[in-house]
Amino acid sequence: MPDADSEFNATALPTTYQYWWGVPTFLRCPYRPDFSETDIGLIGVPHAGGNPVGRMQYLGPRSIRNRSAGYHRFHREFRVDPFSLARVSDLGDTPITNTLHPDMAADDIEAFFARVYAAGIATIAVGGDHSVTGPILRAARKTSQPAPLGLIHFDSHNDAIPAFESTRNHAGPFRMASEEGVIDPKRTVQIGIRGAMSSPDMDDWAIENFGAVVTTDAATEQGPDAVAALIRRVVGDGPTYLSFDLDAIDPVFAPGVATPEVNGLTPREVFRILRGLRGLNIVGADVVCHSPPNDDPAQNTAMLASQILLDLVVLVGEARQRA
Amino acid sequence: MPDADSEFNATALPTTYQYWWGVPTFLRCPYRPDFSETDIGLIGVPHAGGNPVGRMQYLGPRSIRNRSAGYHRFHREFRVDPFSLARVSDLGDTPITNTLHPDMAADDIEAFFARVYAAGIATIAVGGDHSVTGPILRAARKTSQPAPLGLIHFDSHNDAIPAFESTRNHAGPFRMASEEGVIDPKRTVQIGIRGAMSSPDMDDWAIENFGAVVTTDAATEQGPDAVAALIRRVVGDGPTYLSFDLDAIDPVFAPGVATPEVNGLTPREVFRILRGLRGLNIVGADVVCHSPPNDDPAQNTAMLASQILLDLVVLVGEARQRA
Amino acid sequence: MPDADSEFNATALPTTYQYWWGVPTFLRCPYRPDFSETDIGLIGVPHAGGNPVGRMQYLGPRSIRNRSAGYHRFHREFRVDPFSLARVSDLGDTPITNTLHPDMAADDIEAFFARVYAAGIATIAVGGDHSVTGPILRAARKTSQPAPLGLIHFDSHNDAIPAFESTRNHAGPFRMASEEGVIDPKRTVQIGIRGAMSSPDMDDWAIENFGAVVTTDAATEQGPDAVAALIRRVVGDGPTYLSFDLDAIDPVFAPGVATPEVNGLTPREVFRILRGLRGLNIVGADVVCHSPPNDDPAQNTAMLASQILLDLVVLVGEARQRA
Amino acid sequence: MPDADSEFNATALPTTYQYWWGVPTFLRCPYRPDFSETDIGLIGVPHAGGNPVGRMQYLGPRSIRNRSAGYHRFHREFRVDPFSLARVSDLGDTPITNTLHPDMAADDIEAFFARVYAAGIATIAVGGDHSVTGPILRAARKTSQPAPLGLIHFDSHNDAIPAFESTRNHAGPFRMASEEGVIDPKRTVQIGIRGAMSSPDMDDWAIENFGAVVTTDAATEQGPDAVAALIRRVVGDGPTYLSFDLDAIDPVFAPGVATPEVNGLTPREVFRILRGLRGLNIVGADVVCHSPPNDDPAQNTAMLASQILLDLVVLVGEARQRA
Amino acid sequence: MPDADSEFNATALPTTYQYWWGVPTFLRCPYRPDFSETDIGLIGVPHAGGNPVGRMQYLGPRSIRNRSAGYHRFHREFRVDPFSLARVSDLGDTPITNTLHPDMAADDIEAFFARVYAAGIATIAVGGDHSVTGPILRAARKTSQPAPLGLIHFDSHNDAIPAFESTRNHAGPFRMASEEGVIDPKRTVQIGIRGAMSSPDMDDWAIENFGAVVTTDAATEQGPDAVAALIRRVVGDGPTYLSFDLDAIDPVFAPGVATPEVNGLTPREVFRILRGLRGLNIVGADVVCHSPPNDDPAQNTAMLASQILLDLVVLVGEARQRA
Amino acid sequence: MPDADSEFNATALPTTYQYWWGVPTFLRCPYRPDFSETDIGLIGVPHAGGNPVGRMQYLGPRSIRNRSAGYHRFHREFRVDPFSLARVSDLGDTPITNTLHPDMAADDIEAFFARVYAAGIATIAVGGDHSVTGPILRAARKTSQPAPLGLIHFDSHNDAIPAFESTRNHAGPFRMASEEGVIDPKRTVQIGIRGAMSSPDMDDWAIENFGAVVTTDAATEQGPDAVAALIRRVVGDGPTYLSFDLDAIDPVFAPGVATPEVNGLTPREVFRILRGLRGLNIVGADVVCHSPPNDDPAQNTAMLASQILLDLVVLVGEARQRA
Repeated sequence: MPDADSEFNATALPTTYQYWWGVPTFLRCPYRPDFSETDIGLIGVPHAGGNPVGRMQYLGPRSIRNRSAGYHRFHREFRVDPFSLARVSDLGDTPITNTLHPDMAADDIEAFFARVYAAGIATIAVGGDHSVTGPILRAARKTSQPAPLGLIHFDSHNDAIPAFESTRNHAGPFRMASEEGVIDPKRTVQIGIRGAMSSPDMDDWAIENFGAVVTTDAATEQGPDAVAALIRRVVGDGPTYLSFDLDAIDPVFAPGVATPEVNGLTPREVFRILRGLRGLNIVGADVVCHSPPNDDPAQNTAMLASQILLDLVVLVGEARQRA
Repeated sequence: MPDADSEFNATALPTTYQYWWGVPTFLRCPYRPDFSETDIGLIGVPHAGGNPVGRMQYLGPRSIRNRSAGYHRFHREFRVDPFSLARVSDLGDTPITNTLHPDMAADDIEAFFARVYAAGIATIAVGGDHSVTGPILRAARKTSQPAPLGLIHFDSHNDAIPAFESTRNHAGPFRMASEEGVIDPKRTVQIGIRGAMSSPDMDDWAIENFGAVVTTDAATEQGPDAVAALIRRVVGDGPTYLSFDLDAIDPVFAPGVATPEVNGLTPREVFRILRGLRGLNIVGADVVCHSPPNDDPAQNTAMLASQILLDLVVLVGEARQRA
Repeated sequence: MPDADSEFNATALPTTYQYWWGVPTFLRCPYRPDFSETDIGLIGVPHAGGNPVGRMQYLGPRSIRNRSAGYHRFHREFRVDPFSLARVSDLGDTPITNTLHPDMAADDIEAFFARVYAAGIATIAVGGDHSVTGPILRAARKTSQPAPLGLIHFDSHNDAIPAFESTRNHAGPFRMASEEGVIDPKRTVQIGIRGAMSSPDMDDWAIENFGAVVTTDAATEQGPDAVAALIRRVVGDGPTYLSFDLDAIDPVFAPGVATPEVNGLTPREVFRILRGLRGLNIVGADVVCHSPPNDDPAQNTAMLASQILLDLVVLVGEARQRA
Repeated sequence: MPDADSEFNATALPTTYQYWWGVPTFLRCPYRPDFSETDIGLIGVPHAGGNPVGRMQYLGPRSIRNRSAGYHRFHREFRVDPFSLARVSDLGDTPITNTLHPDMAADDIEAFFARVYAAGIATIAVGGDHSVTGPILRAARKTSQPAPLGLIHFDSHNDAIPAFESTRNHAGPFRMASEEGVIDPKRTVQIGIRGAMSSPDMDDWAIENFGAVVTTDAATEQGPDAVAALIRRVVGDGPTYLSFDLDAIDPVFAPGVATPEVNGLTPREVFRILRGLRGLNIVGADVVCHSPPNDDPAQNTAMLASQILLDLVVLVGEARQRA
Repeated sequence: MPDADSEFNATALPTTYQYWWGVPTFLRCPYRPDFSETDIGLIGVPHAGGNPVGRMQYLGPRSIRNRSAGYHRFHREFRVDPFSLARVSDLGDTPITNTLHPDMAADDIEAFFARVYAAGIATIAVGGDHSVTGPILRAARKTSQPAPLGLIHFDSHNDAIPAFESTRNHAGPFRMASEEGVIDPKRTVQIGIRGAMSSPDMDDWAIENFGAVVTTDAATEQGPDAVAALIRRVVGDGPTYLSFDLDAIDPVFAPGVATPEVNGLTPREVFRILRGLRGLNIVGADVVCHSPPNDDPAQNTAMLASQILLDLVVLVGEARQRA
Repeated sequence: MPDADSEFNATALPTTYQYWWGVPTFLRCPYRPDFSETDIGLIGVPHAGGNPVGRMQYLGPRSIRNRSAGYHRFHREFRVDPFSLARVSDLGDTPITNTLHPDMAADDIEAFFARVYAAGIATIAVGGDHSVTGPILRAARKTSQPAPLGLIHFDSHNDAIPAFESTRNHAGPFRMASEEGVIDPKRTVQIGIRGAMSSPDMDDWAIENFGAVVTTDAATEQGPDAVAALIRRVVGDGPTYLSFDLDAIDPVFAPGVATPEVNGLTPREVFRILRGLRGLNIVGADVVCHSPPNDDPAQNTAMLASQILLDLVVLVGEARQRA
């Protein structure tokens, strides 16, 4: 795997760093499956076992590696080189021995992330469906994060089902995470919620228990700057996890998801909000629910996920630098 | 056909009410081709004979049945169970014996809707092209609506051609409907009009005769709340029909239409306007011009049409409840 | 649901029986979820839980209903009206309460088919992935088929894995079915096998245990008439089940499958073989592994599956008539 | 419009004659809407009014112009320069004033072709649906072809419906053409017929009345050389029209059609048969039923139609040269 | 080629002027490859040699001819007949003998445009990639535009690379154009710039040298009316060229481009800005970087490009009328 | 990069070796950019500069890595473990500093392959367009292959243009290779040639100079076994290179190519021929001209290319074992 830094300085091969060149890693970071020389690990979790709908999100990490593997040393809007903030590596994909059982797969994911956290590495995970977030948070709790985390949760769904069929590790992990003390519900904020439901129960529970639930309608009315301010108030200065379900975005802009809901956030709003979170203590993050077979021919969803990933590297990298 | 209500209460089968399960009906409503136990009938009109362009809208009802057949008992934004307002059924598709002649097809459509109205049922039709609205309105006039109806017309085109080739029942029925006294031009409002034309004549006629013609540019400038207020002023308290041509929406958001015009309304604006019409006396409605072969892989147009259909059930259901 | 027979005789509405008209059922058969008036039940099994690859086959029944719902009273090549042979109904989709656990889902499927068999109905199932065949066969064994069945198995894979991850009900059920005495391995024949493998073990087991394993290469060399003759010799006169995995067909002709293997059978060979099986005692059948999101824009896979379904109605219908 | 001949000789611009360069005409022939300097006229008939199914064939001429506009002076398999045989021009598209009424549109088509025949020009038409062939044959009968023509008809359907809904000029014109004396049924041969039907009536009529009906199964069994020989026997030496409905070809090879039937002829068989017809007295031809929105991303149907068009130029050109 | 004006007045053939009818020219303008009777020439430049990424923009002119060939005599938003302002012709495509070498291709393009300018014709070019703009500007400089031109440049990239690999005529021509004195950097404004980069150097150069660089974020914050005002201030009254790279637009609205960047301008903003430029002295323009294979099935990019082309005809036509 | 061998033996992770898992290499071979421990190097050449048509083949290596990265230790038809024959590695992609100039790019390619050959490694290259084969052969000639090579060339085109525009290193390199003494024309055989041409010159030259030119028609008539025998006769026992242009295959089976020609070889014929070449002294090979944007949604071309690559590993591996 090319060490992007050293090779780029040594030679003048601009075109060979196009996204399609060579073996793809996340954001063309060095591939270090042995966890060496790494502050922030980008990790694929190619698993989609927690939801009976649109189960192709296991193709997400490959798609985002393919599309993000260009050479982006300068983030124009943040005015920073994201890779100057920390040593960022692609740690490969999470091995899962039992993909067909949600609870067994969750154990595999938790075990792998616990190993990563034990090595002192912060993680930005690339799903997979939303069932991957539960075991990641649980691994953090058992290793690097003794206190419940704050949570910034972009999604069109509350993902707060108490139980689903006969599994606890379904793709709606946030009620479980709250009840297990893995996240602090009062420091939890959801952004982008919308759409018809079988019943209002899950929504009512979230409104009652979480720090804030910002529907898409509310986000529209208040504008992205007010939403960013609200998020900052809810999560405060404590360590916070950011989980980005791509279906928070309008399915015209991000069609490559598993459970789309019309009339969602625009990328413009999303990036305005994200860039308004600079300075928060974001200790880990994930981008989930990219379903490549649904994407449009121009792969807008993969491109958006790649840009969000780059933004997250800045947010987590700067938080780590301050720590 | 499953009676969604009773089965859902009796058993705990959440996943079997996913949109792809079983035989699809509009919004998973009971299928009642005998018109029994019905206040509001959802009716497919799989016909596209009135326009030489993009004649695949006959596939619209199937596409919208397929996509809307999830289980949505709670409308989050309206905060209401749409199906608690009235007995809503899928009455099946309109039989048409002569699809190849616009005027003969129109007679078939008019005859079927007259039968439905005679049964005391309000209708929400799913097209088909816009030529289906003419005979629906005419059937209403002859049966349940003795006075000209107000009209809320979402479209990128005025659809006010006096005659087209050698048929009166073309896909631009609103000048005819006005001249026949089926609609009241002064209580008629068009929203979303835009785009280049062969000549300004049709536009000029509409501006002169209709209560209001709101171009997309005007809607943008005034904002959706002002547009909703204008609509309320124009149609007033009288019985009103709402005809939604999906090409009112920007063709990036709703690509699955027959005659797209760039630079249209966004879903956000459309739903904001629609939800601002609560309380009007909307006695019938249609959603027309969905052309599934043009839709994107994620089927955004079918999803939007399904959501609009659910909104219309609320608007017509509440109006009927008040009546 | 329209009773196709009576309505068609009563009226002259040729165009309204196009495949897109009305609410779709398999082959436009009457929908009878109460199992009434039925000799052969067409049953959807919208489940894809037994394989970590390409898990969208739960969309198969909807896709095949949509495409097969034309009006086909005359099978040109068999020269017979398929629906004159028996009372054929669409019994709806199999309810599955636990889609996320292969073994629990299998129990649900087995229970439903046992109910159908108890009503004296023969079944032609539409998958879903190949994990649905195991419980169907087991239900038959416990009810209508006391002796092991012969098996005609079209597939590109042997599907003879002894165990997979931690489930027995995976999408490779035929070694298990053999070991459970549900099928008779010596009266079992596989057609279409091909492609690279992780190891030759499964293939070796199948060759050793089954009556015959016909690779695609062998089928090409011998020609379809010889293959049909071989099948007839292997399964003999006893009751036989036919399981058709669409990936037996070349993925250019049937792209809408989950686990394609290049260089497969052509539709021409498949239909020549199928039509050479007339007169066998085929007591049940299935068509599995259609994955609609992979299909081509013209939906060739859905069309092929629909034609195979029509052929199977003739094969099962004639066998039942002879019984 | 570039005069391909003179420009090509005068300059050395190989790449500018790629198919996408400049304004597209059929096979990059000179555009001569005034009918000047023309022996064989290639004419688009962008009309799809005769069939309620898949009505997008009006886009066929544009698609085939776009794809055939490369520079092909040498037909490798025929070993001839097709354009050395006759002066071949693109005469543009047929003007149709009433596209919404099949019988009125047919009159427009007949009138235009009568004008072309009056100018002594042979025609190769590019549809459009199969309803365009009836008026073309009728125009020929009234002008250049006093006696009934022989007919070579490639199709998956017999297209021998006596009447359809309330029009005579439907997309199944060959029974009408036979009854009107425009074609000689005994010198008519159909190739490629297959697939399920509502009833066997139309098929029985064709078998009884036409010189030969070659099903796809029969063509497979006999092989293309025998089919070519049969065609030669049926149509003999007399003037003969060749009508090629692209759905004769298997819909995997030609997905871009309106009414596909699985399990059809392969391009290999089609070209082998076509090239076996050299020497027949083919006085006119058409290629119909290309529906571009159904085509695959690689546009195989448009490419096949373009190659068939080139073959037809040779067949008609050589026949004209001999005349 | 039909003279749209005269034919339309002479006959009543509305449907034959649909976009798919006949041989397509830009905006259905008369085709005049001899440069006769022309004030404004629409010229295709089907070349994509200047960028190693997404090199399919040579298909752009064909795609835009195909889509723009409807009949649009009235621009609703400008309230003007664009073709009443000047004699507008399609002059065909630029002949390029050496497509494989950027610098040789540039010479071919420059030579052709010099011939056009020598005939006193203003040009609106349709690319092709952005490498076509350099030779067009150079040709203008040598013939009709003795002084450096102002430049209004819509793009997501600065396109100000000093050199690329071993060619000067790459797809980023604006630094070269500035250094050659072809454009006046102080009268140059870029709109829509955004996205990550290999380094900030090019961006820094542009900010320092050009009159204004308006990022997408800045355009969002200021609103389109302010952006239009800023453009007017920068370019002033002098002769100005407008170069529109379609990737300025968000890739969800314009997916059919070669080098998309997420989070771009919306069509609504673009048209609001463009229509705010009325009255400027725009002497020439281009629309570049349409890559049809990336477009969505509904061809939104081709439609947007066609509408932009129509707007440019008004802007250049009115400027010429005033001149 | 995982060392597939050791990891697979050490653990039981069947699902993690699905094609989408982890970072993709050709056939999941170890990635060894330092050329260590390698007998056969699989090398991407992501370049498409030699042909003005369909220039997206630079995406070929990525596409084939993505699709071939499953775990295939057993080739069912050859009955061999391909990776037991030699140490096979993915050496990464060829660095090219000047992608925009065919002759400069060719120098870069030649230099890289010369380095590989100097390390004693045999190569199987993955294109890229056909211009990559020229420099590969030239590098071999200068290092490991002192005598002209035999050539087995699958293609629909002769690729024997003497010169093209102003470059020698165009995508038709075989006349140049013959004239340079890099290949022995008498030991050269072309298979799959077909389709219309601008002139018969290139074809005539090939027929006259090469050992054999087998058109698709001839291959059909003789059958694949005879073609394999002919190839064996032409190339004999000497060292031979195999160059496989995917457009040799019918574009329905392999749509993802740049210059498709209808009516080509089937995969069945191709694999029958390839497998008939066992025992020849094939010292190197390539698979070129995969253009992913043209591929069908099921990615049949990428799958075919992957299978051909696996076959080539066997052919080159066995030849090397014998050497």
